[in-house]
Amino acid sequence: MADKRNEGSNAMAEKKINPIRETDEAARELGHKLVAGAHYGALGVIEPQTGMPLVSRIAVACDPKGQLIFLASELSFHSKALALDGRASVLLGEPGKGDALAHPRITLIGMIERVDASLDERDELRGIWLERHPKAELYIDFGDFHFFRLALERAHLNGGFGKAFVLSPGDLGMPGAGVAGQ
Amino acid sequence: MADKRNEGSNAMAEKKINPIRETDEAARELGHKLVAGAHYGALGVIEPQTGMPLVSRIAVACDPKGQLIFLASELSFHSKALALDGRASVLLGEPGKGDALAHPRITLIGMIERVDASLDERDELRGIWLERHPKAELYIDFGDFHFFRLALERAHLNGGFGKAFVLSPGDLGMPGAGVAGQ
Repeated sequence: MADKRNEGSNAMAEKKINPIRETDEAARELGHKLVAGAHYGALGVIEPQTGMPLVSRIAVACDPKGQLIFLASELSFHSKALALDGRASVLLGEPGKGDALAHPRITLIGMIERVDASLDERDELRGIWLERHPKAELYIDFGDFHFFRLALERAHLNGGFGKAFVLSPGDLGMPGAGVAGQ
Repeated sequence: MADKRNEGSNAMAEKKINPIRETDEAARELGHKLVAGAHYGALGVIEPQTGMPLVSRIAVACDPKGQLIFLASELSFHSKALALDGRASVLLGEPGKGDALAHPRITLIGMIERVDASLDERDELRGIWLERHPKAELYIDFGDFHFFRLALERAHLNGGFGKAFVLSPGDLGMPGAGVAGQ
């Protein structure tokens, strides 16, 4: 118990001195695994009327380039918000048992845009989506449902206490985006 | 299968006409259960430098008045963001098996402030926190760790497809807050 306490103190002290670690191959692999394996996540958008950061649950998948996509109705509040302000982030990676903060997670930060898909591209995304989310067959072809795509600016990876990294699109094997935000 | 599709279409059509249902006792109970039972959630804050809505994982608990609290280091990026702009939301309620969007969840929306606790109050929150998060004993007494509290303005409850509600602090048995935002 005393050892454990020391271990915690040391990790915390180290984190205070340099909270962001240098990106290594293990961080890139963990980040990629969290993104590629995600079935759902927590989407943050700006509420147009109030400027509040609103978080909601979305189902997710990856397009053939490895970028995060999701399906949403244009009537949903997050679609309406994103139509006015594309700034967004998505938290991926779900806790297992025990301390939720000990489990790895990643926040993808960037601009989200509705996919203006050709029929061929739509077919491809539709196939990817239904493979991961078969129950979406009930509504995927409704006229108000569209795909949205996150153009990644950067990602915050947290591999557990004291294991924080900032990853680039290249680190995650995704196309680079311009710098989002102001 | 044809029946299921019709069911989906009908629920969706109903949602389009009136996406927010009238709050009833079942919605209040579900909302309360999701808040009182939460061990962790997804916190959305505004990143000061960019205005981006950043989502990260936090551990949570409730104070004796039923308000959401969490423990964070003043060195964490969300603590720094909240010190400059308290606008925030927290998504609670975790998916079980199957379709993530079929599982109930709630987004608490309001202003988050650091708790300027008396020694007695800090002791009380400390006890509540360690009961829910025993591993926090490793760092809870570090000088840079503080409790934060969400003053609820409103909550978005989603009980599954077509079951959206907007709840007030009173609906959740919490003290009312002023209108946040702006």
